[in-house]
Amino acid sequence: MPQVAHRLLVRDLAQVVSPAGGPAPLRGAALADVRVVEDAFVLLREGSIESVGRMRDLAPPGGEVEELDGRGLSAIPGLVDCHTHPAWGGDRVEEFSLRAAGAGYEELHAAGGGILSTVRATRALGEAGLRARVARHADWMLRHGTTTWEGKSGYGLDRDTELASLRAVSEAGGSPTWLGAHAVPPEFDDADAYLDFALAEVLPDAAGLADAADVFLERGAFDAVQARRYLLACREAGLALRLHGDQFTESGAVPLAAELGARSVDHLEATSAEGTRTLAASDVTGVLLPASALFLDRPMPPARALIDAGAAIALATDFNPGSAFTTSLPLVCSLACTKLKLAPAEALSAVTVNAAHVLGFGADRGRIAPGLRADLVLLDAPDWRYLAYHLAGDVVAAVIAGGRVAHRC
Amino acid sequence: MPQVAHRLLVRDLAQVVSPAGGPAPLRGAALADVRVVEDAFVLLREGSIESVGRMRDLAPPGGEVEELDGRGLSAIPGLVDCHTHPAWGGDRVEEFSLRAAGAGYEELHAAGGGILSTVRATRALGEAGLRARVARHADWMLRHGTTTWEGKSGYGLDRDTELASLRAVSEAGGSPTWLGAHAVPPEFDDADAYLDFALAEVLPDAAGLADAADVFLERGAFDAVQARRYLLACREAGLALRLHGDQFTESGAVPLAAELGARSVDHLEATSAEGTRTLAASDVTGVLLPASALFLDRPMPPARALIDAGAAIALATDFNPGSAFTTSLPLVCSLACTKLKLAPAEALSAVTVNAAHVLGFGADRGRIAPGLRADLVLLDAPDWRYLAYHLAGDVVAAVIAGGRVAHRC
Repeated sequence: MPQVAHRLLVRDLAQVVSPAGGPAPLRGAALADVRVVEDAFVLLREGSIESVGRMRDLAPPGGEVEELDGRGLSAIPGLVDCHTHPAWGGDRVEEFSLRAAGAGYEELHAAGGGILSTVRATRALGEAGLRARVARHADWMLRHGTTTWEGKSGYGLDRDTELASLRAVSEAGGSPTWLGAHAVPPEFDDADAYLDFALAEVLPDAAGLADAADVFLERGAFDAVQARRYLLACREAGLALRLHGDQFTESGAVPLAAELGARSVDHLEATSAEGTRTLAASDVTGVLLPASALFLDRPMPPARALIDAGAAIALATDFNPGSAFTTSLPLVCSLACTKLKLAPAEALSAVTVNAAHVLGFGADRGRIAPGLRADLVLLDAPDWRYLAYHLAGDVVAAVIAGGRVAHRC
Repeated sequence: MPQVAHRLLVRDLAQVVSPAGGPAPLRGAALADVRVVEDAFVLLREGSIESVGRMRDLAPPGGEVEELDGRGLSAIPGLVDCHTHPAWGGDRVEEFSLRAAGAGYEELHAAGGGILSTVRATRALGEAGLRARVARHADWMLRHGTTTWEGKSGYGLDRDTELASLRAVSEAGGSPTWLGAHAVPPEFDDADAYLDFALAEVLPDAAGLADAADVFLERGAFDAVQARRYLLACREAGLALRLHGDQFTESGAVPLAAELGARSVDHLEATSAEGTRTLAASDVTGVLLPASALFLDRPMPPARALIDAGAAIALATDFNPGSAFTTSLPLVCSLACTKLKLAPAEALSAVTVNAAHVLGFGADRGRIAPGLRADLVLLDAPDWRYLAYHLAGDVVAAVIAGGRVAHRC
């Protein structure tokens, strides 16, 4: 008996919205160029979108079709979180409490708290424990509408824990990034000695497990010379390149990213007007992380200046236990509108199609159009802009991933 | 056959936390004085807490007892939202989008958007429609852990819609506040003419439906003379008093609240050092609304100065469609720690016991202690401080209201 393809018709939706498409991330005015269809349907066939349009134009689909009632709901593309750190043990709730009482993030880091305290807890977890934590974090993301996500290692910083982190991200359905240069672990005297080890002993295997490599270019972590050495070796091994840059100080991350052809430079809270121009003139996407700026009560990144200068930008959670304990891209969209002064349409493009481009998935997801992956979020709202408007709301009614309902509220 | 009392034992909780109690709101250092019990139980009997303690001290409860496994969870008191506007129609998503593009809140209000656009939509709803909206909003609150809440009228501003709003709040389980002086509706030429109408035609019935009265004392709404007149009439009619004050400009709300013996003055973003001292010297509680400041991208209230001066403070959502579209007190606690520099313990007291005092419920809820109402939130966290730490997280595992599980995730 021939296998019949599974088809799912989401009908009578109040709205369906999709960003514009293209071979590269959206820039400038194109970032706000979203298409809204009212009183609409989306028809899915196995893992792909078959068609989308107005209800009055819906032809009888024929054959067996599962139906989902979309009345009162709005459909947006499955969200793409292109910057998360999901592989860790312990928590940083004590540090959060101390910071509320006035301690600074860099100060806590220097005092042996910060990233290195999470490194200790992560090494102690073991591979099964790490797998369980990453799976739990991936479930949190799904509940907030995230159907595609990147997950970084970087809380192991020894061979076994780094490789286990990358495997755990893959197994939970994420795109793994080797953040081998996140911090210098305590068993090394300096950053160069640690990089000697990481590039010789970890990179050969990490390159087979990860899609990309990332480095924390910042005072107290790795400088531009060390970052260049790390990234060049990773590029040579076939990995795409990402950088954490200009979070606390402007340290040359933007020109380095442009020179090396990195996919993104992430943070940019401290990026100057010159850095903004450099980024805008490059093919590098700026990944903005406003939840991290909120969590640390630090200045927001210059989002408006970047967009207006013509830079490609994406938005992400920065999910991690120390500086952004959140998996909510809807919250990030709210912050993008209230704090970064993005229009809801710009925020939507930044957490879908542009974020997909950062991960190399720009061709097959991040939009609602025939042939693309059948990843949708149904919002419990008559207008898709509630995604940003309903602050910390129960805005996600259902999540469809690969053509199947993966979460329902 | 005698009716057997329903008993519920929540056992093996990682932590149970409760603020300190007392006949008045907590002030100064007492605000941070919370008691944490590790490896704990809470035993409920009908609508009340029977006992709380460490598992090793749990005596066999005897009789029929329903059990709930609390492993990996932390229990906090049911949250109390002492400032919400749940009775409205329509939405303000278009205005939200315009504001993201740079328009100011007062500017939109003056242009006929703002509160008056919601008044039109609310009047058009009808009583059944209004009841459905308030019930939906109350369900959103419950899902975020809110078991006691205040709900204001103020989007009707005619007799029928104001009274219908108060009834809808009561029916949904809230404590109704008559916000008869929210704005001047379009059918009146000025604020005094509207107050003549409201006090003569609405107050007599509102006084029988509401627990309290509230006024928006602000440039463009009601001035201090008008607020005094409104509040004195409401006090005479037996209502407790609340004020919206110092949101955009310092307008005399704090001394007026102190003089009239109001329960609270709410907002205080623009309160000066002198206003802070006046509030601290009074019995009035300052209700801080950081989600509203975030939503409007306005300055945060001087929370630290108020607490350090000895003022009693509470925290609330300010849930409304225009300036704070959120029902999440966990988000408010996160903002209290990140933006207002409160310790998690201070934030907890401010959304439980102190908020209960603002509503006149300080004696029977807002804490976990024998004899109090059996309202609990079980957090999906090994440490109760995740309430604030897990930003926009799925932190609520279950909500127990009046001794029964009212929501479970």
